[in-house]
Amino acid sequence: MVKKPKFRIPNAKVPRRGRTLGKAPGTITYLGEREGEGTQVEKLSYDLKTMEGEEPTNYQFLKNKPANDRTEWINVIGLSDESAISEIGSLAGLNNLVLEDIVNTQQRPKLDEYEDHIFAVFKMCYLNEARKIVKEHVALVLTSQRVLVFQEVEADVFGGVRGRIEQKWGKIRQRGADYLFFALLDALVDNYLVVLELTEERLYELENTVFQKPDSDTPFHIQQLRKEINALRRWISPVRELVNRLMESDSPLIQKETRIFLRDVLDHTFEINDTLQIQREMAVSLMDMYMSNVSNRMNEVMKVLTIMASIFIPLTFIAGIYGMNFQDMPELSWEYGYETVWGVMVVTFIGLLIFFKRKGWL
Amino acid sequence: MVKKPKFRIPNAKVPRRGRTLGKAPGTITYLGEREGEGTQVEKLSYDLKTMEGEEPTNYQFLKNKPANDRTEWINVIGLSDESAISEIGSLAGLNNLVLEDIVNTQQRPKLDEYEDHIFAVFKMCYLNEARKIVKEHVALVLTSQRVLVFQEVEADVFGGVRGRIEQKWGKIRQRGADYLFFALLDALVDNYLVVLELTEERLYELENTVFQKPDSDTPFHIQQLRKEINALRRWISPVRELVNRLMESDSPLIQKETRIFLRDVLDHTFEINDTLQIQREMAVSLMDMYMSNVSNRMNEVMKVLTIMASIFIPLTFIAGIYGMNFQDMPELSWEYGYETVWGVMVVTFIGLLIFFKRKGWL
Amino acid sequence: MVKKPKFRIPNAKVPRRGRTLGKAPGTITYLGEREGEGTQVEKLSYDLKTMEGEEPTNYQFLKNKPANDRTEWINVIGLSDESAISEIGSLAGLNNLVLEDIVNTQQRPKLDEYEDHIFAVFKMCYLNEARKIVKEHVALVLTSQRVLVFQEVEADVFGGVRGRIEQKWGKIRQRGADYLFFALLDALVDNYLVVLELTEERLYELENTVFQKPDSDTPFHIQQLRKEINALRRWISPVRELVNRLMESDSPLIQKETRIFLRDVLDHTFEINDTLQIQREMAVSLMDMYMSNVSNRMNEVMKVLTIMASIFIPLTFIAGIYGMNFQDMPELSWEYGYETVWGVMVVTFIGLLIFFKRKGWL
Amino acid sequence: MVKKPKFRIPNAKVPRRGRTLGKAPGTITYLGEREGEGTQVEKLSYDLKTMEGEEPTNYQFLKNKPANDRTEWINVIGLSDESAISEIGSLAGLNNLVLEDIVNTQQRPKLDEYEDHIFAVFKMCYLNEARKIVKEHVALVLTSQRVLVFQEVEADVFGGVRGRIEQKWGKIRQRGADYLFFALLDALVDNYLVVLELTEERLYELENTVFQKPDSDTPFHIQQLRKEINALRRWISPVRELVNRLMESDSPLIQKETRIFLRDVLDHTFEINDTLQIQREMAVSLMDMYMSNVSNRMNEVMKVLTIMASIFIPLTFIAGIYGMNFQDMPELSWEYGYETVWGVMVVTFIGLLIFFKRKGWL
Amino acid sequence: MVKKPKFRIPNAKVPRRGRTLGKAPGTITYLGEREGEGTQVEKLSYDLKTMEGEEPTNYQFLKNKPANDRTEWINVIGLSDESAISEIGSLAGLNNLVLEDIVNTQQRPKLDEYEDHIFAVFKMCYLNEARKIVKEHVALVLTSQRVLVFQEVEADVFGGVRGRIEQKWGKIRQRGADYLFFALLDALVDNYLVVLELTEERLYELENTVFQKPDSDTPFHIQQLRKEINALRRWISPVRELVNRLMESDSPLIQKETRIFLRDVLDHTFEINDTLQIQREMAVSLMDMYMSNVSNRMNEVMKVLTIMASIFIPLTFIAGIYGMNFQDMPELSWEYGYETVWGVMVVTFIGLLIFFKRKGWL
Repeated sequence: MVKKPKFRIPNAKVPRRGRTLGKAPGTITYLGEREGEGTQVEKLSYDLKTMEGEEPTNYQFLKNKPANDRTEWINVIGLSDESAISEIGSLAGLNNLVLEDIVNTQQRPKLDEYEDHIFAVFKMCYLNEARKIVKEHVALVLTSQRVLVFQEVEADVFGGVRGRIEQKWGKIRQRGADYLFFALLDALVDNYLVVLELTEERLYELENTVFQKPDSDTPFHIQQLRKEINALRRWISPVRELVNRLMESDSPLIQKETRIFLRDVLDHTFEINDTLQIQREMAVSLMDMYMSNVSNRMNEVMKVLTIMASIFIPLTFIAGIYGMNFQDMPELSWEYGYETVWGVMVVTFIGLLIFFKRKGWL
Repeated sequence: MVKKPKFRIPNAKVPRRGRTLGKAPGTITYLGEREGEGTQVEKLSYDLKTMEGEEPTNYQFLKNKPANDRTEWINVIGLSDESAISEIGSLAGLNNLVLEDIVNTQQRPKLDEYEDHIFAVFKMCYLNEARKIVKEHVALVLTSQRVLVFQEVEADVFGGVRGRIEQKWGKIRQRGADYLFFALLDALVDNYLVVLELTEERLYELENTVFQKPDSDTPFHIQQLRKEINALRRWISPVRELVNRLMESDSPLIQKETRIFLRDVLDHTFEINDTLQIQREMAVSLMDMYMSNVSNRMNEVMKVLTIMASIFIPLTFIAGIYGMNFQDMPELSWEYGYETVWGVMVVTFIGLLIFFKRKGWL
Repeated sequence: MVKKPKFRIPNAKVPRRGRTLGKAPGTITYLGEREGEGTQVEKLSYDLKTMEGEEPTNYQFLKNKPANDRTEWINVIGLSDESAISEIGSLAGLNNLVLEDIVNTQQRPKLDEYEDHIFAVFKMCYLNEARKIVKEHVALVLTSQRVLVFQEVEADVFGGVRGRIEQKWGKIRQRGADYLFFALLDALVDNYLVVLELTEERLYELENTVFQKPDSDTPFHIQQLRKEINALRRWISPVRELVNRLMESDSPLIQKETRIFLRDVLDHTFEINDTLQIQREMAVSLMDMYMSNVSNRMNEVMKVLTIMASIFIPLTFIAGIYGMNFQDMPELSWEYGYETVWGVMVVTFIGLLIFFKRKGWL
Repeated sequence: MVKKPKFRIPNAKVPRRGRTLGKAPGTITYLGEREGEGTQVEKLSYDLKTMEGEEPTNYQFLKNKPANDRTEWINVIGLSDESAISEIGSLAGLNNLVLEDIVNTQQRPKLDEYEDHIFAVFKMCYLNEARKIVKEHVALVLTSQRVLVFQEVEADVFGGVRGRIEQKWGKIRQRGADYLFFALLDALVDNYLVVLELTEERLYELENTVFQKPDSDTPFHIQQLRKEINALRRWISPVRELVNRLMESDSPLIQKETRIFLRDVLDHTFEINDTLQIQREMAVSLMDMYMSNVSNRMNEVMKVLTIMASIFIPLTFIAGIYGMNFQDMPELSWEYGYETVWGVMVVTFIGLLIFFKRKGWL
Repeated sequence: MVKKPKFRIPNAKVPRRGRTLGKAPGTITYLGEREGEGTQVEKLSYDLKTMEGEEPTNYQFLKNKPANDRTEWINVIGLSDESAISEIGSLAGLNNLVLEDIVNTQQRPKLDEYEDHIFAVFKMCYLNEARKIVKEHVALVLTSQRVLVFQEVEADVFGGVRGRIEQKWGKIRQRGADYLFFALLDALVDNYLVVLELTEERLYELENTVFQKPDSDTPFHIQQLRKEINALRRWISPVRELVNRLMESDSPLIQKETRIFLRDVLDHTFEINDTLQIQREMAVSLMDMYMSNVSNRMNEVMKVLTIMASIFIPLTFIAGIYGMNFQDMPELSWEYGYETVWGVMVVTFIGLLIFFKRKGWL
């Protein structure tokens, strides 16, 4: 009976590009997998002294600038309702190419500067409660007094930023929308580091498995982790370039003081890229380890076979000789014939043992 | 009997460069494989209000500019008739080097800017009805009010663009030839993404095969997919550079508003290059997987052999001993001699089973 | 008896750099292998109306400019006669460093611009009548009205260019020495493409061999092709850079119109580099294929052994039992003892067959 | 019984990034593993004539510039006391982002120039008394007359610099804080070279092991060394870029004469990167060596098995023939039947020996 | 008995960086292995008409410029006497950092330009009489009329240059110290090419070994050659960059005419880097070859075992059947029972031979 593998390969989550074929650029086509879920808007408005949150159902307020130097954080959760996104977008003054990218959950990280806003697509990577890696699409828009955040689900990632806004004394209340934008970006990048800690941990676990009790599923676990790391690289590694461009941008939307903080984020993105590179190499060398282990185990199997067969096949031959039925076999009637044969066998046995001992196979 | 492989390697489709040897540059030499098929011209002419299509047999109209700000899309299907191509080319004001590239179906993607036209060679990659990947040569020429498209066969790829022209309200009717050129390019690139989805799907299928029921044909399937991905890379990856050059070109033929749309295409080309890179790595690691699987199966085969041989060869030896015909073998006449030997054999048998169990081979 | 390998490794054609040790730079030292062959000069002189060829024995004409806007193509065949080369060189105004490179058949492709001439070293690669790849050293010198070509043997490669000169109406007759220089370069590069077609064909043949009837010589054939491709890369890949430099050169020796044609050559060099890169990867993966095939065949061998041994060793053990000579073995005198043992053996046999069938080894 | 591996894989020392999640940038969060150890400050103050060391408990002196062109070296040992670091930092005029990096022991090497100070993070790598590689985080701050050094433990690395200060005639007493900064950097880099000597030595030891007595632990030793080299690369290789930036910096804090010395350090960083690169390749090829060795040993095992089995199985068969009990076996009653069979066996034996000898297996 | 490997791994020649730890930069510390050997100075002074050589014991002459446009070549042999080097250095106006590099035999190739001299460190690689590769440290200093050469031993490499000086008519007598400097550099680089010819030859020899009679030492020979090539790369490959810098330097010490000659050296350095790259790839693929060969030989071993065992084990089983002692075995008393069994055995034998023949294993 063929052994059923215990390990299941996840199905290919092939993107669904086919949907956009033949459509004009700027057509808003949701490419995610959470269709039918509504769109929900949260608005957080604050200045140095006051802060208020609400869930507006009417989006008209987006047409006007926030009052009196207040900063607004608009959180749009759920991207499958193309018409709602379209309405929000047009009120906030975003063109159709931007809106297309917002609902395109397959979109690679990108950063576009427009005259009156900066548009960025990132991937949130974070650990959920079950310590699984979750990857979500997120789009950020920075205008002069507002940050719009478009997500598929409300992720925990930005909870810390909200907490810092709620604390009156935080730096975030003293500064404008560009600092909020930076703080969100910083939160995203910090989570990348945490996710990479998990993959590193798993690499160590797999290394232990390879060393102590590898089985035929092990290469598939290695392969899955390798694909996981590759997928992270695909989402995370473009971020370095984008942060760099943001830092060197001369957009008036980003104040000089905020740029200093961006340098900190940039440092982290360098670290992330180093780590990803090293983890990839580790995964490759794990496979080498595994193969050397398989070969070693094969060697051990072969040694047992060789020792058993090489010892007992000659002995059986000797026994076979004296099992022949020739009429005239003088040894058979010797007084100590039987004992002599035993002696020959024992000597052969010991001789072969010594031979294998010297070979280092015992 | 030697097993016939079920899998057939496609023959090398070696290009036929030899034909051009010794010819002067600018000699129009068809290098494709569809000789003897005629050349057919379609003309689609539109402005904001009207649209008309025809199949002119006389190409003289190419000498004049389209009337009244109309935009013309000239589709030339079939490249093997060198004289027809030559006539169309000279009427449209294309020099011989351009015409040589148009009929050279081996031509690498390229983009040349001339004073009054932009010439580009791309490769169409799309899925036909049978979901096979089709690769076709296509040459585009953009002049001030016209786009000429040279293809070997009429491919479905540009059907969506035609559909958008037919819809009066589309953006495409409001804009000039440069937008048409961009729309065709966008259609090409969108199809690349769909093709790459297919190769990704196949990679996942092969991964399942490697994991669940690999056979000796599997490495060849992996190899064929690897070659397919390499071929795609050869045709597709230069496109990024060309789109970038187009975006940064200061040719008056491309209006500023169209450039914004090109950035979108550029984004896609980045994604395509990422995907190709990752797919190549996946194909390589599939081969590693397969090899580790072969080694594991070999290990299992060896274990069975070793266990069977190591158990029964010593037992056969014991039986051989008492098959000897010595006159004086006291054990033979013991009362429970036979039963004692059976006992020794059973103990040996169980001892070896325990040994293999501890080795983890059972 | 040890099997003699059918395949012979070509001897290392180690260059003979040792000869130049301790010599001053600019010393003219022939490094090729065709010593003792004389030097022969051909002169082809043409303008728009007339063309004449001769084999001058006196080289004094090189001191003067060709008359009346005529273009001269001087073909120097045979480089081993250092004094003749030295005389030709000094009459044509070439310095000693240039002459050293002309006779150094090991020289890497290079391009040097001087005030009144351009000097280039290339490698001709072409297929001879037996479809073998031939690599020859060639040096080109472009002066204002002359092209000097230095070769070891007269190769077929430039035959097409000569043919085009003979035809009065060709573009080549209308243009100057720079166009002749370009035409020769174009002929060289076209031949590279033909040579690469051959290596691609061979890769396909080897792939078929690996798949259908690999033997122990196959890795050496792969290795030889790999070395062939590497050698081509060594000679061909620097050409791209040189053509690029030529295109961007502001030497007055190259007219603006000729530069447009150079772009065509440059395109080809890009294609050549792509092809070389892909062929190298193919050769590497062929080796992977071969190794996986070897492992698979080993697996098959092991399975046959395991099945045969695992079935017959236990059966032989059973037979051995009843070959023992104990006085009291009750089974021996049972009425159907012999038939029962046969029954046990058949059941064991069938049981093991079913086991191996389930393993998928039959 | 499963053999217990003698070799233990070190546990993953996974960084603890999780701690910083949700905190504002500039929050001082110690990320090291030496919590609860206090912070200790040493102050070394010198000019050309005098030198004095003390351990101040009050850090107020940091607010003022050192007197009379004296240079101060402030050594801060122990980073876990976040409030002490914070106090020192604010007295010395360092902003919070700098302080965050000082206590972030996971921080990648970095260099930031501010108007009145230069801040750098490096990794000390040195050998302790037991010749183990120790990696420690160190942060350096250069102000106009002071160098602040932040370490987790007091390492031996800077002992040499202190020694040179104590010697009155050293160059270090004649020059300012920038030379001290350079001398500390030089000491760090010199230690990298010593550490790399150790890894090179270990590579040679492992090569000897692979060659002379490899066991199944060897690949894990190779893998551990590979990870060690990778970790060093992660810490050391960014230093080249930082030193280069320092050299090209136009900060007034670094005098022109000191820059000349920096070139020396830069040279060393180049050498370090070369060495790391070569060591990485060596580690990879060691694994290849090991695998080829495993295959060779397997080959030897198989040869012994094949020779023993191929010789004695046919002989046993011959003996088996004449062990049959047919009533009518004429050979059994031949006069020299038994001797003839022995003869046949000896001939077979010798024949097979010759066969294996010719194969080269003996 | 364990076979003693015939091949000995050379001991690690680990550099002795530890010696410089804690020393101030500019401390002159000899790092070579030839301690205790004295320092010897040779002086060669020439102009167009005269040439004289001497071995001065007093170095005071270094303080003054050579008289009357004479050029001086000062050869310093033996670097272990730190005080002598120090004296020579200070007389010749070299600073301590330069002197440190001169006696640091581990120093990577480097080139530093100072106002009145150019300092360069190279590695001589040449073949000694026994055709072994010798690597020596050499430092060159070019001042306006002098070239100082610092070596550990007097190497043959510069013999050719000396020969050319002795010949009155050579170009070298007509030109200044910069041409001498260039000629020495040219001699160094020419020797690299000769050394690389040797490694290429060895690669070919190893390829033949791998193909015709590989043994278990072969991978170690490959590995040693690989390390040799890597070591050469470490010493040689930086030279290209240095020569390039020299060529583009605007130091008044190097005349314009000499720069033309440097281009020739630069060409050679390009060739050297190409060759090193190709040799590295060849060494890697040799290892692949070897492994495929090992697998093939294993396959052959297994086939012999399988054929022998698969043929004789079933036959032995048949013989075993009729060796059983059942009272009632009708076949035993058949008239042609024995002959029938022989018939069955022969048929089985031939059947299995045909089976293996069809498998292609015979």
